[in-house]
Amino acid sequence: MGDIDNNGYHHNLKVKAFEIETGKLIAILHERDAKELGIFAGERVELLNPKNAKRCIAVIDVTRHAVKEDTIGLFEEVMRALSVKSGAIISAKASEQPRSVDYIKKKMKGEKLTKQEIITIVDDIAKERLSEIEATAFVSAVYMKGLDIDETIYMTKALIDGGAKSNFKKGPLVDKHSVGGVNGRASMVIIPIVASAGLYMPKTSSRSITSAAGTADAMEVLAPVSMSMDKIRSITEKHGGVIAWGGAVDLAPADDKIIKIEHPLSLDPEGQVIASVLAKKASVGSKFVVIDLPVGKYVKIKDKTVALRMAKKFVQVGKEVGMHVEAVITNGEDPSGMAFGAALEAKYALEILEGRRFDNLAQKACELAGVLFEMVGLVKQGKGYDKALEILKSGKALKKMKEIIKAQGGKIDSSEKVPKPPLKKDFKAGTSGIIEEINIRELTKIARISGAPANKTAGIMLHKATGEKAAEGEVLMTIYAENKDKLISAESYALKSMPFKFKKIILRTIR
Amino acid sequence: MGDIDNNGYHHNLKVKAFEIETGKLIAILHERDAKELGIFAGERVELLNPKNAKRCIAVIDVTRHAVKEDTIGLFEEVMRALSVKSGAIISAKASEQPRSVDYIKKKMKGEKLTKQEIITIVDDIAKERLSEIEATAFVSAVYMKGLDIDETIYMTKALIDGGAKSNFKKGPLVDKHSVGGVNGRASMVIIPIVASAGLYMPKTSSRSITSAAGTADAMEVLAPVSMSMDKIRSITEKHGGVIAWGGAVDLAPADDKIIKIEHPLSLDPEGQVIASVLAKKASVGSKFVVIDLPVGKYVKIKDKTVALRMAKKFVQVGKEVGMHVEAVITNGEDPSGMAFGAALEAKYALEILEGRRFDNLAQKACELAGVLFEMVGLVKQGKGYDKALEILKSGKALKKMKEIIKAQGGKIDSSEKVPKPPLKKDFKAGTSGIIEEINIRELTKIARISGAPANKTAGIMLHKATGEKAAEGEVLMTIYAENKDKLISAESYALKSMPFKFKKIILRTIR
Repeated sequence: MGDIDNNGYHHNLKVKAFEIETGKLIAILHERDAKELGIFAGERVELLNPKNAKRCIAVIDVTRHAVKEDTIGLFEEVMRALSVKSGAIISAKASEQPRSVDYIKKKMKGEKLTKQEIITIVDDIAKERLSEIEATAFVSAVYMKGLDIDETIYMTKALIDGGAKSNFKKGPLVDKHSVGGVNGRASMVIIPIVASAGLYMPKTSSRSITSAAGTADAMEVLAPVSMSMDKIRSITEKHGGVIAWGGAVDLAPADDKIIKIEHPLSLDPEGQVIASVLAKKASVGSKFVVIDLPVGKYVKIKDKTVALRMAKKFVQVGKEVGMHVEAVITNGEDPSGMAFGAALEAKYALEILEGRRFDNLAQKACELAGVLFEMVGLVKQGKGYDKALEILKSGKALKKMKEIIKAQGGKIDSSEKVPKPPLKKDFKAGTSGIIEEINIRELTKIARISGAPANKTAGIMLHKATGEKAAEGEVLMTIYAENKDKLISAESYALKSMPFKFKKIILRTIR
Repeated sequence: MGDIDNNGYHHNLKVKAFEIETGKLIAILHERDAKELGIFAGERVELLNPKNAKRCIAVIDVTRHAVKEDTIGLFEEVMRALSVKSGAIISAKASEQPRSVDYIKKKMKGEKLTKQEIITIVDDIAKERLSEIEATAFVSAVYMKGLDIDETIYMTKALIDGGAKSNFKKGPLVDKHSVGGVNGRASMVIIPIVASAGLYMPKTSSRSITSAAGTADAMEVLAPVSMSMDKIRSITEKHGGVIAWGGAVDLAPADDKIIKIEHPLSLDPEGQVIASVLAKKASVGSKFVVIDLPVGKYVKIKDKTVALRMAKKFVQVGKEVGMHVEAVITNGEDPSGMAFGAALEAKYALEILEGRRFDNLAQKACELAGVLFEMVGLVKQGKGYDKALEILKSGKALKKMKEIIKAQGGKIDSSEKVPKPPLKKDFKAGTSGIIEEINIRELTKIARISGAPANKTAGIMLHKATGEKAAEGEVLMTIYAENKDKLISAESYALKSMPFKFKKIILRTIR
């Protein structure tokens, strides 16, 4: 016990640097030092660099081998927080669990959290004060116990307060968000349309979590999407729109960490999704937001009751944080356009802008842009769609998109320049008939097995839409991949899952 | 994409060794390599050492700095699994999520798991195939959604099958377990009593999770407790008993990992506790087990209904895995003996064995030993307690305890040799009266603030029991600590929480 002073400090710990960024504040102690300090693995120490009086709190890993006694292993983030180098001597002392651990436990028991408790949790997550176990327990609790409307409002406000804020000088600022599960990049059509009409849409989009591509993944095929908030603002103020990756901006650091935990388990608790979406829009400064809620058998929202409940929450929470939000329930039964995958979806959006295609995705883009036109009062109620269609058909939207791609530093500004996938395989109809149903969830899975979204050119191109006829042997879709292994896996999964359902004449046989 | 072959392998990754044991299989990739392989942080790669064809699956951390492109950072465990050295070239390929992730999600949704699903989850946890996020989500789901009786039985069997097994040549093998929250080390009295009577009790005890000391913590003050299963067997076969730390034996590796996750959040889901306790007893080979369920306002189990439900489950699950289990509901209202803390509780148990004390803790030990005597048929029903008391009073149990301490390699075999705490502070009565209630939970908290259980000699010694009189200024308890800071914190918490409640004459005033 000789190393510990009257105040519980161990003053003689030699720093061993581990040059790894862990994204967390972690330190490693020998088990005997940990015991002397009275702490176990996963608990916390307060570290002090006596040279400059800098302090930080780190979560402890306990070892018998990685560091010797009277040595402390520090990862990059801790080294930086203390401004300390390998070989320096620092002090450590047991530190209590942050208060938010009690609040997490409270939520796990199904109790309602107060505003202050949610603020504390969000702050502790953002500042890396929670261990991965504690943060995961919180996300799991929110998934299993839910957030009610008050908690969702508190969460939204806490996320906004904890993040970067932008300061646009122009307006009206508009935005759009689709709640998961559908293919097709409507945003890449909507943004140039609304920007052409004099609105401003600084879109910070996400990468795919469960879909074949996120808007950020698709846009990245055409132009860089990682940029600072300043650049987002300057491009938007100059060109009326931008399509950036939200993760590169510190819009809601706690939310980015929560999403990292949700990802491996594909969790998407309703309250958290609403808070996450609206906080990011509010941080950018958007005043008019349209939320697209696709409802369909094979997408995230399966029935209209759920969509209606979410829609009302989106509107109410929006109002609480000073935004005019309108939520639209859309048809999520059919694929939205024919493409699944980053490059394929980017190409498809360009083809719509170039006037080469007009289908349900193009129509959706015009309808949503129309809602925004009506919300800001640019046109009369009921006239938004016509205005959007007119802009699309005039070629102004295409010109605007080329401008935005260039402003973001991209060079691929026509559908013909989009990189082509190296390998492909046609998937043919085994029978003739009318296609009654196309299973978006299975198509997404096939596209992901083929390598999407990490492999940019991988994915699927449909050749038939719902309701169309197909003859035996006719190509229903083409699967694209960047390596043979994934192409074969994707094809064999497609054969097994059979995402196309043909209309039957005999519906039932009675024997 | 040039580095990835047709089968999805990157064959040119240079190993950079990170000499840290993480307790998990983790590898670090540069973000560009991760993207080429089509994986995100938290997903998995299959690694292959082409020199010896060894393979392993690791969870990926993605970095921009810690490793360069075409380099892979490996921690100790992965280095060992592949038998690879720094600078070697290995191959990597994206690997799917283990199937248990789907089952975890299923449990999170509140659905019941099948036997095979639980076996898969337990196996994946034991073999480190789950990331910390995934394993925490499972533990959280079990806490929030519970395990029903079937699931508890599956879990128990899966834990038994996944762990080391022992092969005792002597018997009958008996054991005892108390379900949390009470101070006092009854086991340290019970074991020498039953061993003196010719039974065999190979106790693998735990360290404290939420209490002031676990049996392993207290026994460690007297003798080493980390030992192999072989040593546990040989000492028990020779002396009739042993008090080892369960964590040093691979009795149920998945359970040890689950407990590590439960610890920081103080989670103790009922089904998991039952499975954990009985699996460890079964792995050791115990045939007769008494489960002690203390019920009291300030301990884990607060009412008899819960205790009865747990008791029945313990008995039923025990039967399913071939054990005769009897569960007893005990008085958990009062402290069990007067000591809180590892050294203080060890000393106290020795004093009982030495005949210096006989109180409610001594009585509890004799009652529980008596149950075991009756279970194995050593004495008639109703005669167990007398037999145990006779052994205790005869001095045979003390002799046996000295034998066991010596066999484990310890030297502290009398209460006078137990190390004394360096600092102490008396806590005095602020008023006179009869002590109506002593709050065990608050005493435990005070003991933990004073440094228990990591600081071995820290803790509390009570001077008054429930029902006793105390005059103003009389010492109610003494707080012990190993450093001043903790002593002051513990005292100030004691003053605030006031764990002693005095009887009042005026119960209510009506104005």
